[in-house]
Amino acid sequence: MLPDRLSTTYAALADPTRRAILARLAVGEATVGELAEPFAMSLPAVSKHLKVLERAGLIARRRKAQWRPCRIEAGPLKDAAQWLEHYRQFWDDSLVRLDEALCELQIGERRETGNG
Amino acid sequence: MLPDRLSTTYAALADPTRRAILARLAVGEATVGELAEPFAMSLPAVSKHLKVLERAGLIARRRKAQWRPCRIEAGPLKDAAQWLEHYRQFWDDSLVRLDEALCELQIGERRETGNG
Repeated sequence: MLPDRLSTTYAALADPTRRAILARLAVGEATVGELAEPFAMSLPAVSKHLKVLERAGLIARRRKAQWRPCRIEAGPLKDAAQWLEHYRQFWDDSLVRLDEALCELQIGERRETGNG
Repeated sequence: MLPDRLSTTYAALADPTRRAILARLAVGEATVGELAEPFAMSLPAVSKHLKVLERAGLIARRRKAQWRPCRIEAGPLKDAAQWLEHYRQFWDDSLVRLDEALCELQIGERRETGNG
């Protein structure tokens, strides 16, 4: 069974080097050589990471003379972010505080009306 | 080398069953038995997924008589979402449109002042 797209995206993001490559590409297009520079990594090692990112649809490469600059592709990042958005209620302090405030308000009202 | 926390989080999310378990837990606490029910999966298979989620800090379990209900832990989900937030510029249409509008405005101004 082929993994679904969201699983492929998260699996591709589950590596610090691949996330650093995406961070570099967020600044602008870059070739394999330019991407390899800050990592003290061989070109084949970087190419392997790029292949994972390309297969996940997180980057695209275009032909430009001999070199093939890479750029970020937004689609899968957007889907991954949107899936996580559903869980915002669990970490959004302002929502938690609003919920607590509403609860206290309800408790107060119940006490006042003698139903608490 | 131990994987970093963000990598562990994304690796744990790179599975449709584990994401479905988190979606179920978003509704409220559940025991292993309750979690196994909708998946036509054996308890040991579900337990294995829960261990991955627990190791990644995405769920916590508490002792309650014989059973140990699971609940979502927000921290790693928040970090995973925040990392993706940095890339919002690549998919947020409103930002892209704003950028295009500003460019057109600049081009128009240059034409008017004869600098374009």
